[in-house]
Amino acid sequence: MPAPTTAIQPTRHEDFPEWYQQVIAAADLAENSEVRGCMVIKPWGFGLWERMQQTLDRMFKQTGHENAYFPLFIPLSYLEKEAAHVEGFAKECAVVTHHRLEAGPDGKLMPAGELTEPLVVRPTSETIIGAAYARWVQSYRDLPILINQWANVVRWEMRPRLFLRTAEFLWQEGHTAHETAAEAREETERMLAVYERFAREFLALPVLTGEKSESERFPGADRTLCIEAMVQDRKAVQAGTSHDLGQNFAKAAGIKFLGRDNQEAFAYTTSWGVSTRLIGTLVMAHSDDDGLVLPPRIAPAQVVILPVTPKEDTRTAVLEACDRLAAELESREFAGERIRVRIDKRDRQGGAKTWEWIKKGVPIRVEIGPRDLASGTVLTARRDLAPKEKTSYAATEFAEKVPSILAEMQENLYQRALAFREAHTRKIDTREEFYAFFTPARPDKPEIHGGFAWTHWCGDPAVEEQIKADLKVTIRCLPFEHDGPGTCPFTGKPSPQRVFWAKSY
Amino acid sequence: MPAPTTAIQPTRHEDFPEWYQQVIAAADLAENSEVRGCMVIKPWGFGLWERMQQTLDRMFKQTGHENAYFPLFIPLSYLEKEAAHVEGFAKECAVVTHHRLEAGPDGKLMPAGELTEPLVVRPTSETIIGAAYARWVQSYRDLPILINQWANVVRWEMRPRLFLRTAEFLWQEGHTAHETAAEAREETERMLAVYERFAREFLALPVLTGEKSESERFPGADRTLCIEAMVQDRKAVQAGTSHDLGQNFAKAAGIKFLGRDNQEAFAYTTSWGVSTRLIGTLVMAHSDDDGLVLPPRIAPAQVVILPVTPKEDTRTAVLEACDRLAAELESREFAGERIRVRIDKRDRQGGAKTWEWIKKGVPIRVEIGPRDLASGTVLTARRDLAPKEKTSYAATEFAEKVPSILAEMQENLYQRALAFREAHTRKIDTREEFYAFFTPARPDKPEIHGGFAWTHWCGDPAVEEQIKADLKVTIRCLPFEHDGPGTCPFTGKPSPQRVFWAKSY
Repeated sequence: MPAPTTAIQPTRHEDFPEWYQQVIAAADLAENSEVRGCMVIKPWGFGLWERMQQTLDRMFKQTGHENAYFPLFIPLSYLEKEAAHVEGFAKECAVVTHHRLEAGPDGKLMPAGELTEPLVVRPTSETIIGAAYARWVQSYRDLPILINQWANVVRWEMRPRLFLRTAEFLWQEGHTAHETAAEAREETERMLAVYERFAREFLALPVLTGEKSESERFPGADRTLCIEAMVQDRKAVQAGTSHDLGQNFAKAAGIKFLGRDNQEAFAYTTSWGVSTRLIGTLVMAHSDDDGLVLPPRIAPAQVVILPVTPKEDTRTAVLEACDRLAAELESREFAGERIRVRIDKRDRQGGAKTWEWIKKGVPIRVEIGPRDLASGTVLTARRDLAPKEKTSYAATEFAEKVPSILAEMQENLYQRALAFREAHTRKIDTREEFYAFFTPARPDKPEIHGGFAWTHWCGDPAVEEQIKADLKVTIRCLPFEHDGPGTCPFTGKPSPQRVFWAKSY
Repeated sequence: MPAPTTAIQPTRHEDFPEWYQQVIAAADLAENSEVRGCMVIKPWGFGLWERMQQTLDRMFKQTGHENAYFPLFIPLSYLEKEAAHVEGFAKECAVVTHHRLEAGPDGKLMPAGELTEPLVVRPTSETIIGAAYARWVQSYRDLPILINQWANVVRWEMRPRLFLRTAEFLWQEGHTAHETAAEAREETERMLAVYERFAREFLALPVLTGEKSESERFPGADRTLCIEAMVQDRKAVQAGTSHDLGQNFAKAAGIKFLGRDNQEAFAYTTSWGVSTRLIGTLVMAHSDDDGLVLPPRIAPAQVVILPVTPKEDTRTAVLEACDRLAAELESREFAGERIRVRIDKRDRQGGAKTWEWIKKGVPIRVEIGPRDLASGTVLTARRDLAPKEKTSYAATEFAEKVPSILAEMQENLYQRALAFREAHTRKIDTREEFYAFFTPARPDKPEIHGGFAWTHWCGDPAVEEQIKADLKVTIRCLPFEHDGPGTCPFTGKPSPQRVFWAKSY
């Protein structure tokens, strides 16, 4: 058997789901814990989440939101107040029924102190936050309420997959209350635009923006907007959602106010969220057969410096040169932030260290050894090029160039992902072509199919149901941008606009 | 009845516990939710927590730690692995027993899908993190592991009190693993020193540092270090702890490694944490009868600008002057960070707005009205002085002075708290004086007592037990700084050092 030529085995083409797990393991992002469906997010993975949090938090604050914190537990009766909502979440709730442990007859500990009313570990917080808003809102002067929460939530997933679908995950959930339907609608659109910009500018991810069909709507919402990304097996990932909840939750929770007209009215509420699922999306969208590839703007470290210290007598000088370069880089900015640098001084074999950082997806690697010291140069490599492709720079010139190299890489990754999506998106006008598009060309690779189909749809949920049953394909969104009305290829009826269909995570 | 002369009723002296609740309500920091013992942290309270998080997070990273995230749920069997640990937490655990909801015979939802093994909502994470470290550590080269987690934890408190004792609270928990006992010990001391510095420099809180007696130790620890603050009813608050866990949790979880001597050995672990309890401590330590008083370094806003706009024709000019002053202030730094400014442009009555910000504890208030505009002045007030004591400055001069005013306020608050603690700490050498010190002088004010007693103790837990039963007083710490050995006033036996006794939260 020949030695593998890629760091990740299997490759994307050989076995995409297994490749995904291996990329995560090789980058040391996360692992499964002993608690079914709950993951441990390791420091490199959490560093990515911290970058996402800081960036989004700034964007939320710029759009007028403040953070707050609401209880982890929701009384069962609260969840029941909104019928569609409880229907949507009842099947996957962690339920707390006791509040202490006691030794049983056999001496083993067992739950004791049964609660009068069971508590549900929040799968999302509309109901518990709605109860607070009902206390806070009396007059139109108390509106709008613009609050976000960073929290953990639990949905008991039967088929968990690291980052994409876990029983516990981390997320942010914005919850706002407004005086008018128009304001709530605007808020929903504003926050979707924030998500779209974040995905594009920071994650280098082109995303579709649009509205969900009724069958894919958030339980209890009037309207669910979403961003949808295509990943490298041509499937879609719903990467963020923004819900116009109308007055549904306000009525359920009693968020009432005295209006300008002196009449009592229910508020209009919204909620919007993104989660650690973004990390899974990022991994599936950009990584290659050597591991993780990180867009510079979201990378916990943008440059890693690897000292090459073969001999003891030059070791100190090499390490000092590394410190100097790090300080020089850290004094510079890329995209409005200080450049983030790490020096890997660990006493390990150089090749192993290099491959570790390749697999972790750091954008730029720099080697400095005794010969570089003598010549005043540094040997550099970019994560978006082949591992062996290296460029030597004068040390001073390199520091100056780093911001533009990072900018170029950020743009490259975006363009590559955009080209991939465009190559695998097809405008389809017949049922036959649609079915062929989603039927695997190779029977041994059932997961490979066409990608995104951009097709007219009359609006009938029965069509969605049939296609889901036949092909496991769903409508990902009714995009905001489209080419007008036409004819539904499935029913022959008029269609208001083309919609995007895809297999999805 | 005369009109109240303070914004908070009752005053501290009239009813301290009720005053505390009222200060929190008036500052809009937090409120109780419908879920017993779980609080809602409102934006101003959460803003305080964010400032604490950011500051501590920076200090943790400067001392070599990284963040990660571990599961919310702990299998019951994990908790049982360390006997003292489970004993310490079994009485206050939220227990998840089911993973979905189903309609019962009466149509009402009830827990369904019983779990094979119940899950405990983490009261602290030693056991679940220990299981991960056992996977990660093979060789001494894998050590140390220096990780922190920001998380929510649940301890089912029977008598909850906002911030100080809640069923769910937010905290950080550091968890480290080391090769040697000495390194673990050093880590424990290093992090306690971080907490002491944070309390002193940011919260303006002088704290005692020392070790807990065995009876007050963390369940499962070899040694618990702590910082203890005195608040204005002379009670102690344990504001942070750092535990040397020895090999106890390593043995329970199997954190083993191959040492430099090629022998297998168990790691030495530590854990250390502070929580939203710090907010309660801050409130009780610095606030006055007009509400919250915030040390400038931790205040979400350090300066609030209040536009005075009696007439429509000068309104725009006044608002513009406010914006200019805010920009001017925000371009300056205090204690290494940009000055944090808010402008309160809400259309409300001026007096009401002023009192709102007094009650929220913002260090400096600035009023700008048409007359100030004409004279180029601003009218300012400091939260540490009487509400009516105002100083007029030339606008340019004021902006220059703000950093030094804030520095002076920060120092004043610290000195005031220190003087208070010193005034209410007594070196005591007889049993009689000790009992008198903790016996309320006024029968109608059972909560008022001496404060901290600095007294010799022979080390016998029976003494602690008796004093706790008699006076509800416990040893807060065996302080690092003391005046050497002496005689225990309770037993007449030799005492290695004086210890601090107090009533506590």
